[in-house]
Formats: sequence, structure tokens, C-alpha cells
Amino acid sequence: MPIHQPPRYQQLADELSRQIRQGILQPGEAVLSVRRACQVFDVSPVTITQAYYLLESQGLIEARPRSGYYVRTRLPQVLNAPAMTAPTTDAAELEVSDFIFQILDSVKDPVFLPLGSSFPDPALFPLEKLGQHLAKAARHLTPMDTVAHLSPGHEGLRRQIALRYLAQGASVSPSDIIVVSGAMEGLNLCLQAVTRPGDVVAIESPAFYAGLQAIERLGLKAIEIPTHPHEGVNIPALAAALQKHPVKACLFMLNFQNPMGGVVPRANRQALLALLRQYDVPLIEDDVYAELHFPDALPVCTKQDDPTRQVMHVSSFSKSLAPGYRIGWVAAGKYAEKVRRLKLATSLATSIPVQMGLAAYLQSGGFDNHLRHLRQQLMRQAEQMMNSLSRYFPVGTRVAVPTGGYFLWVELPEGHDALAIHQRALAQGISVAPGPIFSARGGYAHCLRLNFGHTHLSPAGDSIEKLSRLLG
Amino acid sequence: MPIHQPPRYQQLADELSRQIRQGILQPGEAVLSVRRACQVFDVSPVTITQAYYLLESQGLIEARPRSGYYVRTRLPQVLNAPAMTAPTTDAAELEVSDFIFQILDSVKDPVFLPLGSSFPDPALFPLEKLGQHLAKAARHLTPMDTVAHLSPGHEGLRRQIALRYLAQGASVSPSDIIVVSGAMEGLNLCLQAVTRPGDVVAIESPAFYAGLQAIERLGLKAIEIPTHPHEGVNIPALAAALQKHPVKACLFMLNFQNPMGGVVPRANRQALLALLRQYDVPLIEDDVYAELHFPDALPVCTKQDDPTRQVMHVSSFSKSLAPGYRIGWVAAGKYAEKVRRLKLATSLATSIPVQMGLAAYLQSGGFDNHLRHLRQQLMRQAEQMMNSLSRYFPVGTRVAVPTGGYFLWVELPEGHDALAIHQRALAQGISVAPGPIFSARGGYAHCLRLNFGHTHLSPAGDSIEKLSRLLG
Repeated sequence: MPIHQPPRYQQLADELSRQIRQGILQPGEAVLSVRRACQVFDVSPVTITQAYYLLESQGLIEARPRSGYYVRTRLPQVLNAPAMTAPTTDAAELEVSDFIFQILDSVKDPVFLPLGSSFPDPALFPLEKLGQHLAKAARHLTPMDTVAHLSPGHEGLRRQIALRYLAQGASVSPSDIIVVSGAMEGLNLCLQAVTRPGDVVAIESPAFYAGLQAIERLGLKAIEIPTHPHEGVNIPALAAALQKHPVKACLFMLNFQNPMGGVVPRANRQALLALLRQYDVPLIEDDVYAELHFPDALPVCTKQDDPTRQVMHVSSFSKSLAPGYRIGWVAAGKYAEKVRRLKLATSLATSIPVQMGLAAYLQSGGFDNHLRHLRQQLMRQAEQMMNSLSRYFPVGTRVAVPTGGYFLWVELPEGHDALAIHQRALAQGISVAPGPIFSARGGYAHCLRLNFGHTHLSPAGDSIEKLSRLLG
Repeated sequence: MPIHQPPRYQQLADELSRQIRQGILQPGEAVLSVRRACQVFDVSPVTITQAYYLLESQGLIEARPRSGYYVRTRLPQVLNAPAMTAPTTDAAELEVSDFIFQILDSVKDPVFLPLGSSFPDPALFPLEKLGQHLAKAARHLTPMDTVAHLSPGHEGLRRQIALRYLAQGASVSPSDIIVVSGAMEGLNLCLQAVTRPGDVVAIESPAFYAGLQAIERLGLKAIEIPTHPHEGVNIPALAAALQKHPVKACLFMLNFQNPMGGVVPRANRQALLALLRQYDVPLIEDDVYAELHFPDALPVCTKQDDPTRQVMHVSSFSKSLAPGYRIGWVAAGKYAEKVRRLKLATSLATSIPVQMGLAAYLQSGGFDNHLRHLRQQLMRQAEQMMNSLSRYFPVGTRVAVPTGGYFLWVELPEGHDALAIHQRALAQGISVAPGPIFSARGGYAHCLRLNFGHTHLSPAGDSIEKLSRLLG
């Protein structure tokens, strides 16, 4: 495999990151202005900006309006970030464990402390307001509506979704958007649209277990690509995989990846897309957490840089607005007609009164206001849990500092056994998501994914302290 | 292949059927009482009852309360019924045509006369009443509801479904029922639960095209079994297929089969299940039309005779109550946990406010009253269309007399080309469902499936006359 020489901005970011971690740059201190840094490091302003953006997305520095960048004070610095992962990279058929279903079932039991849950805390959402809009839509549903909004779906809803892309700098036609019953249906449809049983799909390592399950269920083979929490998949490693295997699709998460939580910088995405264009391989992007960025940390919309429409962008309202409503969508680019037909053939349509109710809510304009509160709340909860981890978890624990979503990816010191912790915790009424469920081969034996979205059930300090006593 | 000697009751029914068709028994005349027939034919009352039941399900005789059986007057007798089909019976990979999507898309266009539609006329349903219940559920949705009703689904709804089985003489536990987003999702989940890509699945010939599509999409092979409109699949032919091929599942419709419309008698189902038990092969039964039986023609519930729980019974409310809501279910017998996990892994849950709204409607008790009206209406429309067909369609046309559902399966005299008719009709604003889409190999070139559920758009006479001028 060729040796990967990181770009200049990344070398710079690494250098500053080291200075911050070693305490050379102290929390609260200003970093060099862009102009000054250009002189000091003899590089262009673009390079400095990219480096600072990367450090910001890693949660190490923060922008203060009209003042410049500062080393972050709010997140504990005693926890180090995990490094690039190193999975084996031959294609494999998968076996999915019972652990996933144990965790999913524990979520339904209100007695459990759902640190292992994949869901956001449903108490965070405007269910009453949504209900009013759904109620109105339900009362006014006409017979013609029940056929007019068959797939690709309700036009008003697709237009609202297209408007959100526009706000993120991407132009997506409503006719490329297919409404689906949640992002998981969307991922399944995308995979089916571009693969046949036996084909190879590239995934991140670690990766969201539902993606792994979908790959298994469709008789596909997964090839795991080394992935950095804040840089995304290793491009040279992916290039090698594309060369070696007949990869038919990539299934990646580029914003607040589940489980690791990072945001892949725009430059890396452009490199990724350029590589995939070369092999004419579609990128199936699972982007369900994009709206959950912390107030100052904007995610990136890959659809900005997709002139060949090879990105199949999958998202939903389940994490950002309407859990339980089961409304998602796919902006499927050049594969849109294929996905629409598959949707029509597999489940015909997504519940039509629900589509209409959601469209009416979005038109009413309440979404952005709700998101502002939600983002504040999630950031506060992340900080609480980070603080508790640094207080109660063993020395040597590494955590990727999140800038959005509601997961922390925790690498315990080697020797800890996440599956054993999972079983002990379950017996004590706590669910956790053990690392091995995020890999086709059961790696990440000493890792846990923790959900910081549910702290109203128990203060983060209490639940993390309780969990720390079960680490063994 | 062994020669199939039909059971005694069937020989009797065939004999009476011939007498009716030849005019020996005239419309409106009473047939022999059960007691008298026992003496005349020297058989048991059970055999007579089975024979009469079969004739009733074929639409040839009808029961009049407290008076006995009479030859039906209402349906035209000039049209003969189609015979047993004769597909080739080697396993095949499928190719699905664009015709299906042309028809599906034409349904959305209110300008089209939807004789080819697979949907019931949405004007036939209590959308306003349903909307009131959904509205109430939406306004009262709590955060805990959004996780508590994850798959298998809302408990109150599953209990209501179990109660309907009970009314049909079948005992199904709510814990065996999984709520799904329409029957098509249910069929897909059932197929995935019991097959792997490359496996062989037995289907009827002709069969519903969505089932054929699902088989193709999952990388399975279909083997088509000869099927009689009112008798179901030929048991000896199925036995031969089971012996020859490693069949992993049967995908059949036993009530108002789409497209042929018959009801398979209980005795035939028992024979079918006995055979499948012998090979430990599950029966995936698509039973979405069961509630649409005409007033006097009861369907049969296969779950009555399923002690080994090998029937995966798939149904939905889309045809009987709530089009567009996308609520179905699977009573998956011994495969219930497998199906539940698959549902959880592929789409997590069915829209939760919609489940709650439907449960509330069913609890309110309005369903049976709605069904009474719907069944009357559909029978009237069937009779109108049958009359028009016998008036306008060419001599030699055969039609299976339906006793429920909303389809007529029309065999035109040999030489007619259904695909050409489809294209000519589409150009004239009429959709039809051409026979070849109901087979993996494009048989049934001279057959059409016509939907008689939409006659409010245009009197049956008018649309059938218009269509008759396009037969070529």
C-alpha cells in the first residue's frame, strides 16, 4: 500500500493539535490569526482556514464572533482522541449478533438507562405541535390524496426537503427526492438499486450496525476501510480496495458518523468523490445526524460537490424532528428513478397522512426554532457526559470529542471487554452499545458507544459513575 | 406425474356445475337439499356440504337464509370460466417489465380510467372517520409511545387484529403478529426470513406481479405451479415440484387470488398444508382481499388449520379500510421472532401515530359496518362489469366469476395480444393489466385483469364498451 503523505493543512492541524494536547496552548487562549499564521507557517490563507476548520471540527478550538479562534475550554482535555482504525481489508460475509436485538429491546423498557440506545431522547421533540399538524392533515385527507402521493411521495414535502438542501448550499431537485419510511428503508433501497447478491460494498470501520445488517441481509459482502474519527475513511486505503475488489457501492456516514461522531472536512469529501467518480461507484451517504450539529459546528453537505449526481443522500426526520413518525428520504441523484421504482415495488408509499402532516409542519416554519433549542441541549449534555467520563473512567480512556449528534465513542484501555461490560450493565438496568457490533468481524473489543441524549432520565454523572463500577 | 383423482365432493360439484352450465338446472331453481342429495348420490352430508360450498365459492349457487341453495341468477352465465393453467415448471430467474410501472403511474393520473389498477377505489373508504381517530392519536402521542410501539408494534392494534382472526375461527396470539407498513413489506420480510439469495420459491401461475418482483429483487428463483381459479394450486404438481427442487417457501393467495379471484376450498388448503408439513416448507399467504368477500360468500382462514404454525399470514388494511395509511401485518407463526427482528432491522417500526389511530378506530367498532356496505357495493359493481363483458366482449371470452375482491380475470379468445391492447388503451386514457405481467415468463398473452372497483368514474358499460373497441 502506498505511504499516505497528509496534505499541508492537515500537517498544520496535527502540529497545533499536539501543542494543545501537550498544554503548550492552554484552554481559553487565542490561536494565531489567519493573517499572522500565514506569515509564521509560510502557507496560504486557504490552508490555514482549512487547518482551523479541521481543529474546530475536532472540538479543539472554537470561533468567537469578530474575535478569532480560541482553544476550547468547555470540553475536558484529559481524554485523548482515538486514532485511525485498522481493520482487516478483505471482503467478508457477515454474521450479526444477538447483542443488537438485546439493546434494541432494552430501549422499549422504561426501567433501562438507555446509554446503548441508537435513538435520541423522544422528550426532546415538539410532538404536540407535530400532532396538531398531523391531526389537521388526517381530517382533510381526500380519496385522491391516497393515490396522488404514491412514490416518489408528497410534492409539498419533497419541496420542503429541497429547500433545506438549498440552505446548505446544495441544489437538489424535488424530482430526485424519494420519500421513504425512515432512513433505514432508504439505505436498503439504495443498496438494492446498485447491487446484486454477492457484490462487494465498502463501509467504514467501525460502522453503524444497521448498515452491516442490511449488507448481510441482501447477501452482499462488506469490506471495511480504516477510518479516522474526524477525517473519515482513509483515501489511499479505499483506493487500494477499489483496485483490488469489484466494489459496487460505498456506504458511509460523513457527518457525526455513528459510532465515532466526527465530521469529514469538505476537502476530504472532494477527494473521496473524485476517487469514486474514477471508478463510477456510487456513494450511499447516511446523513441522519446532519441537523444535530452543535451551535458553532456546521456539518458539510456532500451534495454541494456532486456534479455527476453519484451521491445517494439518505436522511430522515426521525433524529431531528419526528421520532416514531417514520419519515425519511433519499436524494438519489442519477439513481432516482431506480430508487423510486424499488420503493414503489417494495412498499408502494410512505404513510400519506403522515407525509402531509409533516409537510404542513415544515411549511409553518417551526423547524429551525426547534433545532436551535435541540442543538444547545445536546451540546450541554455532551459536555456533562465528557466531564463525567474524565472523572470516573480509567486513565488511558480515549474519547472522540463530538461536535454534533448524541454519541460518544469511548476507547477503554486495552484489556477491557465491551461485550462482558454490556452483559453486566444489562443485568444492572443499563444498556451500552459494545464496540464489536460496529464491525463485521467483531473488532473494537474494548470500545463502547454511549448515548448522551437521554440525561433527563438520570444525570450524566450518576449513570457514568454507575457504569464505571461495571467496567471490570 | 401421478394422475390426480379428484375427491368425491369435487366430482359431485363438477357434475352439478355441468348441469348448471348446460341449463339443466336453471338460474333461480333450488338445488337438492343436503338430506335429499345424500340419498340421491349415496354420500355423507359432509361431502354434499363441501360440494355446495365449492359451487358457492365458484359463484354458481347461493344460499338463501332458512331456505337452502339456489342456482344464482345475478351473474351472467354466457361467460365460461377459465381452466387450470399450464405453466412450465422449471425454476427461473425473473425479468420484470416496464409495463408494471406504466400501470402504477397511470393510477396517479385522474384522467385515466384505472381498469388496470391494483388498488381499490379510495372513494369507498371511511377516510373522514379514520382521520378523526388519527387526529386524536396524533395529538396525544407521548414521547414514550415513540419507543414503546417499536416492532412488533402497538399492542392494542395487534390485539384488535387477533380478535378478527378469532371471528374467523382461528386462534392467533397477538405476540405472533408483527405490524408492517403494508402487505408488500410483509411479503418481503417473510421471504427474507426463510430464504437466502439463490433459493427457490413456489408461486401460483398466474401470480400477483409484486410477489414476482419481490422474488426477483431478493435474488430468488420462482417456480410456477399450475393453478385453477377456484381450486388453487394443483397439489400433485406442487408435490412433484417439492420433490424435484429444494423449494424454501410457497408464496400463494388463497382468497380472491390476484389476478384470478377464486377462493380455495378448505379441504384443498388442508391438503396443501399437509404436503408442506411433510417438507417443512412455510406457506407465505398473501391474504389482503379476505375481508372483501361478497355478502354470501365467506372466505376461509388458513390459520384455522395450522397446528404447526407454518403459515406466515400476511394482510393489511389498505384494501379493506385505510388506503394510503400503509398499515399491514404478518401473523408469522413459528417464524414470528425472525420476522420481528427483520422488521426491526429493516425499518424499525411502522408509523406510530398511524398505528395508534387505526387501533382506536377498530376499538370504536365501525369496521364491520363499513365492510357490510363495501361488500354490497363491490358485488354490484362486479355484476355490472360481468354484464358489460358478456355484452361487448367477443364470443369465446372466458371470465372467472368472482365472489369477492375487485378483479375480473378475462381470457380473450386466442390470438388477442394483451400487451398491444395495453398500449392502445393507455393511449386512449384507459389502463388495463395485461396477462404477461402475472408470470415470470410472460405467458397469458391473451388475458387481462380488469378492476371493477372504480365504476364511479365511468359506468362499467361505458368503459368496457370503450375497451372492447381497442381489442383489435
